[in-house]
Amino acid sequence: MSKVLIPLVEGFEDIEAVTVVDVLRRGGVEVVTASVGGENPVRSAHGIDIAADTTFAEASVAQYDAIVLPGGPGTSRLKTDEVFERLRRQQAEGRLICAICAAPTVLVEAGVLAEGLHVTCYPTSVLELDRPSAAVPVVRDGNVITGQAPGSALLFALVVLQTLRGESVAKKVALAMVTDVL
Amino acid sequence: MSKVLIPLVEGFEDIEAVTVVDVLRRGGVEVVTASVGGENPVRSAHGIDIAADTTFAEASVAQYDAIVLPGGPGTSRLKTDEVFERLRRQQAEGRLICAICAAPTVLVEAGVLAEGLHVTCYPTSVLELDRPSAAVPVVRDGNVITGQAPGSALLFALVVLQTLRGESVAKKVALAMVTDVL
Repeated sequence: MSKVLIPLVEGFEDIEAVTVVDVLRRGGVEVVTASVGGENPVRSAHGIDIAADTTFAEASVAQYDAIVLPGGPGTSRLKTDEVFERLRRQQAEGRLICAICAAPTVLVEAGVLAEGLHVTCYPTSVLELDRPSAAVPVVRDGNVITGQAPGSALLFALVVLQTLRGESVAKKVALAMVTDVL
Repeated sequence: MSKVLIPLVEGFEDIEAVTVVDVLRRGGVEVVTASVGGENPVRSAHGIDIAADTTFAEASVAQYDAIVLPGGPGTSRLKTDEVFERLRRQQAEGRLICAICAAPTVLVEAGVLAEGLHVTCYPTSVLELDRPSAAVPVVRDGNVITGQAPGSALLFALVVLQTLRGESVAKKVALAMVTDVL
């Protein structure tokens, strides 16, 4: 069974976090949401209090097939040594790293985005990213998947699922959600 | 300020509920989430515990510009006398009633869907609906807006916002979310 870690911080983008959890669990992936600041529940960008499954400190010791970072105005709170170190370990193990919206900037600061790797991100984060980026919904390059914004959260989640569990599982989930974005 | 009530029950569809809250709050709408069963937090269809703002019994005494019903496997729990009565009051006041996925079936059982009104819903709910329905993402007819599935939740939420706050507010929110579905 694939296992995915989703770090949550106060101000995470509601749709971006919840869509990834929903789509991956529909696809039979074990998803662990983890509060980076330790607070629980964690308040989203738009005032929804969501219970994290555990703390980041506890969750991060395990291995994960993917780490997925939601964006939102709270993204700067993801920029901690503990998150950076966990991302570097993920990179060293050659496992999947995913980030959407403003969160690809966390990958740059953690030093896990290889030079020349293609990515996408939220329009206002492009300059901070300092990587070849395209204004497209989702980019997969090497072991990194990036998404642009809440408007591309569903496709982003489906591409993460497709990468972890294959085309047919992802297509089946997309069909049940009545979407043709994939 | 527009005010919207979103009833939550165990097993509500995660994306459908959260997308509506996110989009409406981005558009300056006051959103009240209310636990119908009284439990708090309320567990979503995919195991996310979300804190409701209040209970349905407390919230339902107030007036709302719209009531929005998320779907999901928990939809049958929305079929209570208390919810039916609140929907009938909303209908009698000529105010907006919205439902997505399996939730349009709640409107039929509450008796608030006028004969001949056009709607959409989740494919497997069509027979239960017994209304002229189209396999399209979103339908607005009279004071009723219906949506089809998680895959159309973003458009559904934007159409509710557009109806409450106008084209320019909805377009601005869509732009910030980087989506062209509207």
